[in-house]
Amino acid sequence: MNDFHYELIAEDTETGARAGVLHTPHGKIETPIFMPVGTQATVKTLDQHDLIEAQAQIILGNAYHLYLRPGHELIDRMGGLHQFMNWSRPILTDSGGFQVFSLGDLNKISEEGVRFQSHLDGSSHLFTPESVMEIEHGLGADIIMAFDECTPYPCERDYAEKSMRMTLRWAERCIKRHQELSAQRTHRPPQALFGIVQGSVYPDLRRTCAQELIQMDLPGYAIGGLAVGEPRDSMFDVIRETTPLLPNDKPRYLMGVGLPNDLVEAVGAGADMFDCVVPTRNARNGTVFTRNGRLRLRNAAHAEDPQPLESDCACKTCTHYSRAYLRHLFKTNEVLGMHLATFHNVFFFQQLMRDMRDAIISGHFAAWQADFFALYQDS
Amino acid sequence: MNDFHYELIAEDTETGARAGVLHTPHGKIETPIFMPVGTQATVKTLDQHDLIEAQAQIILGNAYHLYLRPGHELIDRMGGLHQFMNWSRPILTDSGGFQVFSLGDLNKISEEGVRFQSHLDGSSHLFTPESVMEIEHGLGADIIMAFDECTPYPCERDYAEKSMRMTLRWAERCIKRHQELSAQRTHRPPQALFGIVQGSVYPDLRRTCAQELIQMDLPGYAIGGLAVGEPRDSMFDVIRETTPLLPNDKPRYLMGVGLPNDLVEAVGAGADMFDCVVPTRNARNGTVFTRNGRLRLRNAAHAEDPQPLESDCACKTCTHYSRAYLRHLFKTNEVLGMHLATFHNVFFFQQLMRDMRDAIISGHFAAWQADFFALYQDS
Repeated sequence: MNDFHYELIAEDTETGARAGVLHTPHGKIETPIFMPVGTQATVKTLDQHDLIEAQAQIILGNAYHLYLRPGHELIDRMGGLHQFMNWSRPILTDSGGFQVFSLGDLNKISEEGVRFQSHLDGSSHLFTPESVMEIEHGLGADIIMAFDECTPYPCERDYAEKSMRMTLRWAERCIKRHQELSAQRTHRPPQALFGIVQGSVYPDLRRTCAQELIQMDLPGYAIGGLAVGEPRDSMFDVIRETTPLLPNDKPRYLMGVGLPNDLVEAVGAGADMFDCVVPTRNARNGTVFTRNGRLRLRNAAHAEDPQPLESDCACKTCTHYSRAYLRHLFKTNEVLGMHLATFHNVFFFQQLMRDMRDAIISGHFAAWQADFFALYQDS
Repeated sequence: MNDFHYELIAEDTETGARAGVLHTPHGKIETPIFMPVGTQATVKTLDQHDLIEAQAQIILGNAYHLYLRPGHELIDRMGGLHQFMNWSRPILTDSGGFQVFSLGDLNKISEEGVRFQSHLDGSSHLFTPESVMEIEHGLGADIIMAFDECTPYPCERDYAEKSMRMTLRWAERCIKRHQELSAQRTHRPPQALFGIVQGSVYPDLRRTCAQELIQMDLPGYAIGGLAVGEPRDSMFDVIRETTPLLPNDKPRYLMGVGLPNDLVEAVGAGADMFDCVVPTRNARNGTVFTRNGRLRLRNAAHAEDPQPLESDCACKTCTHYSRAYLRHLFKTNEVLGMHLATFHNVFFFQQLMRDMRDAIISGHFAAWQADFFALYQDS
């Protein structure tokens, strides 16, 4: 794993916020980092040049969706996901664990894996730790995630414990298959396998899971099973209890989070990497984010407003188009509205992470965080 | 009308093809020119930077759609269509004549105008030559079209003649109201009003209409009422009979045309300006144009094809993405597929017009045209 390592640059002493650099075969990623979600080999409505202009350093692909369409074997034959979609910067793929539970018509979880029905045609499929490693190797992302069970909320302690133990056994099977495939596929750049800490909202289960995963000496660790319906306070309790357990010299990826205020709080709690459909999905519904909170573009208040979405935003949407024009595009269901709102939101999230990184490095993150919360109103 | 004039640069002696420059308050347009259609103040899926990158010199807006949403008065208050949509190059608006016949639930045509129902909510509206001039002045395009009756095909001679006579009376009313508004609205750049030759497929009616319009000394003339279902040969008979009647020192705009082979033939017949939804609408359905004809991107043949849409095309789609990736985007209904296909088609149409212009100026248009038709297969 010489191509992949995490370099800790600065740590905020008042909070637990960290700034670092993650080195990958497709270049470096400055952390803390938000990864726009490119479910089907595209961050919806943006082309790859837009992503670079919006300062995206790494994007996320979904193994479940790409396995179904166009298929990981096709993508592998086309040279891997980077080449297939013409994206030369880093990619992370999830393992499909979350999707087989949330999208598929769940048939059966067993020690072997998960049998599920496709959300497209109802056809039956089996994901095992081994088959997921084969899918993720076919896709060829820089960072690949272990196959885990993402427990729902609420979750009985007994179920959460059994599930967490199985997730640990699955992690061992993922590592074994990942090592075999890495040895066979030397024509492709090496890939880094991250483990996922589960254990629902039970601190001792999270601790056990983290400790066991750390024994496996993986290049990065994720906190999974959050943002699945639990109260916000419970989510942050788990984050704050888990990050101190994780090694200082490895990246910490908080999966599926979140809103701008969640990101600012989670960075303060020591998380380094994030992904969420929040900026892209909200944009397509006409909701954009600013330092003050959300703007709903369909509102009549914007009908004749010549202002940009955010007056000091340097994105192409804010430097070229008015709220009035954007509202018109949404009222007439024009694709350009979705595109321009998505561009702004992705840019906004990247800028937010960059600002946090600068504040951490310059040693005033706690003050920056207080300023952010004084201005930002989530509604 | 000092800001607006047509400069004839070259004329092909073998055909009737012309190359020229049309000067407008928002810059010059090199003819022959194809105008991408931006119905609702957006060329669907493209932002204004994309349009410039695709070499668009002028775009078309639809008075009917913009009158309904967001309203020409709102656009006027926002500084006009150029400012509203942030497009600083020339714009042409049609008069809504075609739309009230094709989209609205037609209630009544009378000497006064056309009463129609909105396709959005069924509400009743009246377009008169005077009201259409008010709408087009509110929008503020560089070129505005007179309100005409676009006769259907087939059309009885008697109806065609009566309709053409009314279109001429409407043109007089448009001119009068246009002159009044121009005198009042000196805070806005001057606008050029084009007349529209009607007369269905009857040569003598077309001749009479053209002669009467020429007496009105307008800055440009359009050939309307074509591409409405008549046989292709009939369409070209009308074009070939009409263009020689029109003044050599004014631009000739063939409305609603067309496919690449139509454009190449119509330029040879002496038309200078064109608009059509063909490149944009086809793109959104997954059909792209190349020098060889159409490609249907959903076809299985493209599933693993690493080639671009067209190997020698310089557009961003062809220089960055494979047919395999584009097919995947269409099969998964991703907006990016529509965007990339639209970009290619708009670029292709602009490049086609530019190549024709170069061939006219260098004096070998007839040979260029023969080469084009030898390669292009419409299917």
